[in-house]
Amino acid sequence: MNIGVDAMGGDYAPQAAVLGAIEALGYIGNDTRITLFGDREKITEILRQEGSSADSFDIVHTSQVIEMGEHPAHAFTWKPDSSIVVGFQYLKAGKIDGFASAGSTGAMMVGSSMVIKQIEGIIRPAICTQIPTEDGGCSVLLDVGLNVDCKPDVLFQYGLIGSIYAQSILGLENPRVALMNIGQEAEKGNLAAKAAYETMDGTESFRFVGNVEAHHLFDKKIADVIVCDGFVGNVMIKQAEGFYSLMKQQGVTSPFIEALNYEEIGGTPVLGINSTVIIGHGHSSPKAIRNMILHTETAVKAGIVEKFKEAFK
Amino acid sequence: MNIGVDAMGGDYAPQAAVLGAIEALGYIGNDTRITLFGDREKITEILRQEGSSADSFDIVHTSQVIEMGEHPAHAFTWKPDSSIVVGFQYLKAGKIDGFASAGSTGAMMVGSSMVIKQIEGIIRPAICTQIPTEDGGCSVLLDVGLNVDCKPDVLFQYGLIGSIYAQSILGLENPRVALMNIGQEAEKGNLAAKAAYETMDGTESFRFVGNVEAHHLFDKKIADVIVCDGFVGNVMIKQAEGFYSLMKQQGVTSPFIEALNYEEIGGTPVLGINSTVIIGHGHSSPKAIRNMILHTETAVKAGIVEKFKEAFK
Repeated sequence: MNIGVDAMGGDYAPQAAVLGAIEALGYIGNDTRITLFGDREKITEILRQEGSSADSFDIVHTSQVIEMGEHPAHAFTWKPDSSIVVGFQYLKAGKIDGFASAGSTGAMMVGSSMVIKQIEGIIRPAICTQIPTEDGGCSVLLDVGLNVDCKPDVLFQYGLIGSIYAQSILGLENPRVALMNIGQEAEKGNLAAKAAYETMDGTESFRFVGNVEAHHLFDKKIADVIVCDGFVGNVMIKQAEGFYSLMKQQGVTSPFIEALNYEEIGGTPVLGINSTVIIGHGHSSPKAIRNMILHTETAVKAGIVEKFKEAFK
Repeated sequence: MNIGVDAMGGDYAPQAAVLGAIEALGYIGNDTRITLFGDREKITEILRQEGSSADSFDIVHTSQVIEMGEHPAHAFTWKPDSSIVVGFQYLKAGKIDGFASAGSTGAMMVGSSMVIKQIEGIIRPAICTQIPTEDGGCSVLLDVGLNVDCKPDVLFQYGLIGSIYAQSILGLENPRVALMNIGQEAEKGNLAAKAAYETMDGTESFRFVGNVEAHHLFDKKIADVIVCDGFVGNVMIKQAEGFYSLMKQQGVTSPFIEALNYEEIGGTPVLGINSTVIIGHGHSSPKAIRNMILHTETAVKAGIVEKFKEAFK
């Protein structure tokens, strides 16, 4: 397999991206190659400095970079030779099996929806994250920011998408799927949550266990997969990020607090599209990039895209 | 002034409620009396055990209790001699100046909306909470659960309500009001947030400072008052509660973590109704009850109800 990595993506690119790719070499399978998309001269210079052979990677030279402030859709048109645009072309052509970048989230979304496109039968793709739990494991939260106004049928599909992700990536046999809500009873919640509960209750598509309240976000008392709209999910992950920063700033630590570090999680997959795409955190360190690459490899190996296609046929 | 307290409200009532009221005696003003609503025999027995004089309180005997599992609106009709129903009658009649209970949240809501009623000009009342911040202070978050589907004009009013609350209770002169959102830019968010931003932008009713993201919930970098719908706000406070429990369970502590303890906050005021009503946490300890009573006294002293009436005239 061949994993494409945007060497120009992230606040500390290309340095952090290339260092992360070098780190990843020590972990990926023997039959996995990494293709770096970016400025060949800069990439090879970093590899030289690190004493890493340029032969360890495939390098695709690109002359442009989509900056964080740019309008994503416009940038996609105006910068055809940018690392992200070329990466998506390779992905679509099947020259790479997955693509990961810590660069412009917006551009990664545009590439996912316009170039790779959603799987037939899936109303809207989602992005998910792994939430660390008190037992040292994690649960899956989706959507965390792609669809901020979710209709009930979209939330229902997220239950199935999350279930397949938890089976394939976390190895859970029959994951418990819950709806994020403000009470346990069926009649609780806003209009969307109440209607979503009705569509999920009694489904055979996944193992629905009812509502979960946010004080159970960090334990596994109720659920392995938690479904919510992208507004609520995004607020939740940013609040967790706020806890983590504050605890670090105050010098308070624990294994759980460390697990909240985005570096450990290794990026946010775009689920429900025709290939494997992972979006890294803008502040990605080499370790975060390494984990983003490993996450991409795991998703490709698990054949998660094929599983979605099968489930939504 | 006279503060009414539901002696039968909360998981550990009447014991915890009466003990909390006794504790509060050491903190309230000389001209403040506390009226306890509940079973006179049980109340006086606890006072006797504690060596506290029954003369320290006004006691209104009630023979019924609304339980947590009961349908709030039905219970309000079926249990006319319950501590909550009688408390609201006293409040409406002006025999007490504020009413606080750690009992059935639903029944407290019913009393607030059906007996005390919202102030003319306010579309929907809200409940708010004080969020501890890293500087040892706090910010105000509303709504935290009363209105789960908020129209933009309701969110706008919450900006003004929160601003008046922060001025009156926290003593902030010109509080910064922000909209909880998933990005800083005006065009970010779900439909309600985008429309609310438009109504708030440029307002002279309060000092609107734009969007705030949830990683700033625990600092004061952006705002003193944070406005969101009741679904999002409820999820946020429950997530914070979950984080607090987990830290306690793992033996991790810090002044900030301690400040997340609901006992410190002393209840959630119902804002936008014609009198002062504070709802305590079901698990309230005596300390939490004490702080709930002090919070009620502060709100009455600050004349917050009159300020809302003036602002929405």
